[in-house]
Amino acid sequence: MRSPTIKDVAERSQVSLKTVSRVINNETTVREGTRNKVLRAIAELGYQPDLSARSLRSARSYALGLVYDNPNPYYVIAVQSGVLSVCRESGYGLQIHPCNSNSPNLAEELVQLARHSRLAGLVLAPPMSERMELIRHLTDQGIRFVRIISAAEDPKDGYPCVFVDDRDAAYDITKHLIQLGHQRIGFLWGGEAHRSSPERFRGYESALKDYGIALDKKLIIHGDYSFDDGFRGARRLFALKERPTAIFGSNDEIAAGVLAAAKSSGLEVPYDLSIAGFEDSPFSKQSWPTLTTAKQATEEIARHATQLLISTLDEDDDADRRTVVSNKGFSPQLVIRGSTGPVRAGN
Amino acid sequence: MRSPTIKDVAERSQVSLKTVSRVINNETTVREGTRNKVLRAIAELGYQPDLSARSLRSARSYALGLVYDNPNPYYVIAVQSGVLSVCRESGYGLQIHPCNSNSPNLAEELVQLARHSRLAGLVLAPPMSERMELIRHLTDQGIRFVRIISAAEDPKDGYPCVFVDDRDAAYDITKHLIQLGHQRIGFLWGGEAHRSSPERFRGYESALKDYGIALDKKLIIHGDYSFDDGFRGARRLFALKERPTAIFGSNDEIAAGVLAAAKSSGLEVPYDLSIAGFEDSPFSKQSWPTLTTAKQATEEIARHATQLLISTLDEDDDADRRTVVSNKGFSPQLVIRGSTGPVRAGN
Repeated sequence: MRSPTIKDVAERSQVSLKTVSRVINNETTVREGTRNKVLRAIAELGYQPDLSARSLRSARSYALGLVYDNPNPYYVIAVQSGVLSVCRESGYGLQIHPCNSNSPNLAEELVQLARHSRLAGLVLAPPMSERMELIRHLTDQGIRFVRIISAAEDPKDGYPCVFVDDRDAAYDITKHLIQLGHQRIGFLWGGEAHRSSPERFRGYESALKDYGIALDKKLIIHGDYSFDDGFRGARRLFALKERPTAIFGSNDEIAAGVLAAAKSSGLEVPYDLSIAGFEDSPFSKQSWPTLTTAKQATEEIARHATQLLISTLDEDDDADRRTVVSNKGFSPQLVIRGSTGPVRAGN
Repeated sequence: MRSPTIKDVAERSQVSLKTVSRVINNETTVREGTRNKVLRAIAELGYQPDLSARSLRSARSYALGLVYDNPNPYYVIAVQSGVLSVCRESGYGLQIHPCNSNSPNLAEELVQLARHSRLAGLVLAPPMSERMELIRHLTDQGIRFVRIISAAEDPKDGYPCVFVDDRDAAYDITKHLIQLGHQRIGFLWGGEAHRSSPERFRGYESALKDYGIALDKKLIIHGDYSFDDGFRGARRLFALKERPTAIFGSNDEIAAGVLAAAKSSGLEVPYDLSIAGFEDSPFSKQSWPTLTTAKQATEEIARHATQLLISTLDEDDDADRRTVVSNKGFSPQLVIRGSTGPVRAGN
């Protein structure tokens, strides 16, 4: 005969696993009647708690994992800081796991990470959060997670997420440049693996369309979310017969690269060239001139995602203890600074 | 009579705690004779392994903790990256713990962190690593750690550390500026809580002395390792009746602030003002002009510190399994870039 498990106790006493666990750990939050029911079931079944699991649980030695692949230190620090603040409020530690989003073994790597380090759940930043086969694998393996994704609306696919409307914000940035008189607006992509990049491109594309400006493929350069790709992309745009009068970099790192390229080419910003970024990173406030950008509340987004994850971990809780946290959308806001100005007559 | 402990088993069988633990965990690395000796002691004493501890140990669910308090995202990301790479090689996870170095409860906070999250040891970045009362408290509480500190030589105080010779590198930077003809060289301090800051100041001070330049207190401004303090400090120096022709910022963030202040004041770098930083951060290569600085191998320093910590964790190991890692010093190297140039005749 197999030994009775905590599941057997839960079934016999008709309460959740979490409640049985609370009784075993002598937590004070269980009602007297419920406690007695559980203790009776334990006695009748001759259940012996697994000391190792119990010790883990009672010591609350939980940690969450944060999984990201992003070359931008400002973004990474902001995400860490948002996740950590909620972890601390809830008594969780935080393990960080920067990874290679192109690794063929990524799904297995994350499963191993969660099991080996006994993580209660994972916060997935883009682009890992946007890979459905990865999401399904983690679900199959019973790994809890929350996603931070780029989307104009809640995908309603049954997996918890925080979604950021990059498309709308990119539309606003492009409109701002058009309203300053710019017609030739370069666009520098971020990493194609990140869904935010096509989303931002779509915003750019539809603003041009709405204002009757034809898309010129020569003004669109592919690359990564990095300073170097911003620099390189800008230099390629400067070399065009008809160079753009404004460049929209898909994030502030790219825009920083454009700014450096402009300086190294003797172009004055914004008189010879307007530049816009995306993110509202510390750099965007520290550069000279300061950068027009879209304020993305990265820390707040990470906070909400973590609260959502922790609330799903508590799903087995008694209803009266549960904090309900839902999927939520964030819209980055246009911030106009010194790097964008009216197109000049000569341009 | 108290129950026998693993320590009793180790004493009776005359092997280390680690070896007893290996036998209990059925690890294959224990010699047959040793194994039998331990098993005999276990039987004789009637020792019952603590299942909870055993499970933790056998699952190797270890993580290290990284403790820092630094406003500079480039530094933090580089330290994390160095520590993580060694953690991964050794099968450890990494919990991050940014903290407030001025918190009165910091010592207790770190003890709780290590216990609550069952961390195998802590990597302490400055300034926590430089507080002797904290170091002694952690030692008293049996918390393992390694320190990254600023020092010209090994303090030989019995606690493991990696030491960075900030003084020497700051001497080289100051000498470089003097050799370009500068006599009025401003110095912007970093956080006083970090020992690196007085160390760098001492390097500046002794270079001036060696080259017969009197220290002018008006040219020395106190502040934190941040962009904002660099900006503010530079503006105060610009307002002097006789402004400096060169400014040495104690790190690259400060130097970035000086650069922005120079631009906002219409000063051309390096023609009107030379600027040097310290760290060789990505910013120092991306700014316009690029920054003269001292290349601090932050990632490599963090790697060595972590190897040293892990080697102390293995101290109870059989001698033949131990990797011996010692305290080690690093010397940042002068990197000359576009932000420093000869003093102009008019200055």
